[in-house]
Amino acid sequence: MSGIHNATLEEIGKALFNAKSVILFPHENPDGDAIGSCVALCSALRKQGVDCWALVEEKIPDQIAFIDEGSEKCCTKDPDCIAEPEICAYIDCYGESRIPGREEIFRRGQKHFCIDHHITDSCGEDMYYIDPDESSTTLIIYKLLKASGVEIDRRMANSIYTGLCTDTGNFQYTNTTQEAHRIATELFALGVDHDDIMVRLNQSVDPRQTMLESAAMANMEIICDGKVAMACVSRKLVDECGALMEHADHLINLLRDMKGVEIAIVFKEKAPEITKASFRSKTYADVSAVAAQFGGGGHERASGCTIFEDMETAKARVVEAVKGAVRQ
Amino acid sequence: MSGIHNATLEEIGKALFNAKSVILFPHENPDGDAIGSCVALCSALRKQGVDCWALVEEKIPDQIAFIDEGSEKCCTKDPDCIAEPEICAYIDCYGESRIPGREEIFRRGQKHFCIDHHITDSCGEDMYYIDPDESSTTLIIYKLLKASGVEIDRRMANSIYTGLCTDTGNFQYTNTTQEAHRIATELFALGVDHDDIMVRLNQSVDPRQTMLESAAMANMEIICDGKVAMACVSRKLVDECGALMEHADHLINLLRDMKGVEIAIVFKEKAPEITKASFRSKTYADVSAVAAQFGGGGHERASGCTIFEDMETAKARVVEAVKGAVRQ
Repeated sequence: MSGIHNATLEEIGKALFNAKSVILFPHENPDGDAIGSCVALCSALRKQGVDCWALVEEKIPDQIAFIDEGSEKCCTKDPDCIAEPEICAYIDCYGESRIPGREEIFRRGQKHFCIDHHITDSCGEDMYYIDPDESSTTLIIYKLLKASGVEIDRRMANSIYTGLCTDTGNFQYTNTTQEAHRIATELFALGVDHDDIMVRLNQSVDPRQTMLESAAMANMEIICDGKVAMACVSRKLVDECGALMEHADHLINLLRDMKGVEIAIVFKEKAPEITKASFRSKTYADVSAVAAQFGGGGHERASGCTIFEDMETAKARVVEAVKGAVRQ
Repeated sequence: MSGIHNATLEEIGKALFNAKSVILFPHENPDGDAIGSCVALCSALRKQGVDCWALVEEKIPDQIAFIDEGSEKCCTKDPDCIAEPEICAYIDCYGESRIPGREEIFRRGQKHFCIDHHITDSCGEDMYYIDPDESSTTLIIYKLLKASGVEIDRRMANSIYTGLCTDTGNFQYTNTTQEAHRIATELFALGVDHDDIMVRLNQSVDPRQTMLESAAMANMEIICDGKVAMACVSRKLVDECGALMEHADHLINLLRDMKGVEIAIVFKEKAPEITKASFRSKTYADVSAVAAQFGGGGHERASGCTIFEDMETAKARVVEAVKGAVRQ
């Protein structure tokens, strides 16, 4: 593995399953991988008699709330779910900046763990296992459970599969590996509710999101010989669609997924003089360099920045900056 | 297997690989599974010295044309590619109605084969293997190649993987099986060009399609307490978007994928008094029964019909018919 760890999954599993109480901390604005990892691990720990909760800060997004459905919830917003936790563990995140509002509770743990697949080059926790080569954190949890001799039940299998599907974009993204398919095969053998999960994940789009995306796409612009596609989301447009600004979060993929487009850009009007620009590239353009010109950052293929101008002015400035990035 | 066959894959493989010449016949308007199956099998047969071509009637759609890219093409429109074929084989289809314009050439074969995964209850060919439980026909081809001792090269692996991805909607549809993931694992081990295939399949949408979808979705209607979503595609709208009517083929999925929607309907204005209605349902509604009321047909979850009325009249009639189908 290319990541960092100071303990094996066997050792981390042993410590967790022998603990009296554990609080799991998924990253803020949790996604399917964060919640899936927490629910799978929490279910397994509870089955072995460990007092365990996953502590979240906000409401779990509608589309992934099903992961923690059922009679026995794993996720809670109650900071006092466990008064004196033995272990507090970052799950699918690392660092207090990823758990705002919950730092103080995290510090209450006697010991601190981290299980993650995001890129980082240091970790100061008591026990950590971080591997960016893993398709999802749920796959690490799967291995941890196997290494701990846990019998994986259907709820755990469903949670692990959901995290795998969300983080790989249903086996589409470049983080899809041979191992991802191999473990998917094993999860099917465990009776994963594939059809139901797919309907909930992929066929449960908020109609307001669809409305907002359609309206924004109807006014998209394609420039630079078709290599750059961009769309604007004004607050007026959001209101007209009866939507929320967050319903535009997926819009950038529609732009990038068009043939010939190398860079996709979405401008969001956060306030009259505050414009958020998001960038995606398809195969070669470095959009982190574009975002950096405006004080932003990110990766080569996904980046963002905030520009303190109105949307039209911000757009004009970004268009100039982006022209160089698509010249090959 | 729940399908029908009069020979094992070993036996069919033996007959094909020992033939002097073979023409493969994918279904009309070929998709990734039809072309992927043909290219994988054709490549393998040629490697063993068999004179082989896949005969197509029309241009292969842009999005899947990459399957047959490269120096040695497998697909041809030339009816005289092989003057006296020993074997003519339906691939991913069965019956002359699925190969219009090529029936006469099919009949030239001394022997006739069929390899397919579509539902049928009879087959009169010399050798046939039809299994609707298979996720894709490329998976049957994979098994045939393995049963025949063929060393599967990267081109074959890519073709098989592409067919599997297109027919399962990237491991999303209900035909996604444990075996689909298991064979995907094996294809990764064979060096499948996953990232490249994904960009070509999923990130190469014709901008005209995106334009037309956005324009149609911006005027969608949601009725029956959110259970029915519908959109109209007039010829005027198609023209305004500089698109073709076929660019609306994917639109119905956007409607169905919204939360709460059980039935999605797309109306296409084929001519001033000819309206095509397409139906999809999500979990329980039988849309084949709705289509049947207008002389159409299909499956429980996907159906269609042609109504000889203008679009508004057709819509009003369909709306009445569909109301009963979403009552639970």
